[in-house]
Amino acid sequence: MDVEDKKKMAALAALDHIQDHMIIGLGTGTTVQYMLEGLAQRIQQEHLNIIGVSTSDRTTKAANALNIPMKDLDDVGHIDLTIDGAGEIDKHFQGIKDGGAAHEYEKMVAISSDKNFWIVDDSKLVDTLGHNIPLPVEVVPYGSTKVFRRLANEGLNPSFRMVDKDHFYFTHEHNYVIDLHLQQINHPHHLALWLAHQVGILEHGLFLDIVDEVFVGTDQGVKNLVPEREKRY
Amino acid sequence: MDVEDKKKMAALAALDHIQDHMIIGLGTGTTVQYMLEGLAQRIQQEHLNIIGVSTSDRTTKAANALNIPMKDLDDVGHIDLTIDGAGEIDKHFQGIKDGGAAHEYEKMVAISSDKNFWIVDDSKLVDTLGHNIPLPVEVVPYGSTKVFRRLANEGLNPSFRMVDKDHFYFTHEHNYVIDLHLQQINHPHHLALWLAHQVGILEHGLFLDIVDEVFVGTDQGVKNLVPEREKRY
Repeated sequence: MDVEDKKKMAALAALDHIQDHMIIGLGTGTTVQYMLEGLAQRIQQEHLNIIGVSTSDRTTKAANALNIPMKDLDDVGHIDLTIDGAGEIDKHFQGIKDGGAAHEYEKMVAISSDKNFWIVDDSKLVDTLGHNIPLPVEVVPYGSTKVFRRLANEGLNPSFRMVDKDHFYFTHEHNYVIDLHLQQINHPHHLALWLAHQVGILEHGLFLDIVDEVFVGTDQGVKNLVPEREKRY
Repeated sequence: MDVEDKKKMAALAALDHIQDHMIIGLGTGTTVQYMLEGLAQRIQQEHLNIIGVSTSDRTTKAANALNIPMKDLDDVGHIDLTIDGAGEIDKHFQGIKDGGAAHEYEKMVAISSDKNFWIVDDSKLVDTLGHNIPLPVEVVPYGSTKVFRRLANEGLNPSFRMVDKDHFYFTHEHNYVIDLHLQQINHPHHLALWLAHQVGILEHGLFLDIVDEVFVGTDQGVKNLVPEREKRY
């Protein structure tokens, strides 16, 4: 089966959990786009009163084009459910989002949500994070060469994300992205802790202990995975 | 003695430690302004080759007006010494910088420096941080009401910093400042740890384990304080 079919299948399965009057966090990415189209269709056909909360300019534009009613995060009291994609999900249900431009917003919406669903095709499931994609960190431009050096000294194999060889990639908030090419992140919590303490790093792509349910598009249909939360303490 | 005299006295005492060919981090604030004027004078009179690295637009403008040669943080390999002010310094030599607009840059320059000096008048010395001034945190606007609520729930007595009743105060990087009115910060390291883990908070005004020498302007002249670093582990 085509990877796009798998994404679409996962997106539509998650949509079944949306009920009338919900406030829904809308993630960012190609899989989310299928979800938005399905959501718009349900809103229209079933006359649902749904409010969407965006995680990026891209999603805001797409939702507006589909006439999904939207509010700002600051204008809603809470979010019932956020549906987002993921770049990789490991066997402990920890994830990387690699989009780059929207981490801060995505994470803010995610932690403001009662529940978080991730929708992915099965190529996104990995044993250990970092194998297929780099881990992006959002970095303030001023002093970013110093941050880069600190990341390199820590053995994190950094590279600035570029649009082309002369132009830096910029996030929504006009920061740089440094990609960490790690191959294998054995201790994502340790890494997140270290990154959180670095001056000049705004956010990173590790989404730990956030997801409540994963919808995976596979050749055998949609697999629904629910993490059994281990006791953390 | 006038508080301005004390500031000036402290600023000039720190200046004595500047040697030819140094790369100097230049802090931000009224006390730093005296240091800049003194530095410009020494550069001119002694024909010193000094490079300054700025921590704010305000300092860049002042340094340019005084013809102090400047470079960007990203264009220098290291910084020999940074001289900055402080809003409060406690008996363990931990500090708050309350300026608000320049934390990120000030902290980046500070941690890139071999040494850090603080120059203050004696009203800035306190037993416990938080008594005279609020602790500012720099917050991304999107979702900031959620961050505000988290801070309030944590008992941190937050208020948005405003220019006037209708206009938010903005940092260099176009973020909000939320001031925490704490009266007494008994465990600054715990607080810094908690703040570092909050999504949506870019930086905060706690400068912990950073200063190497404090120059204090008092009625009895300049007192020079050197922290005896306790073993941290």
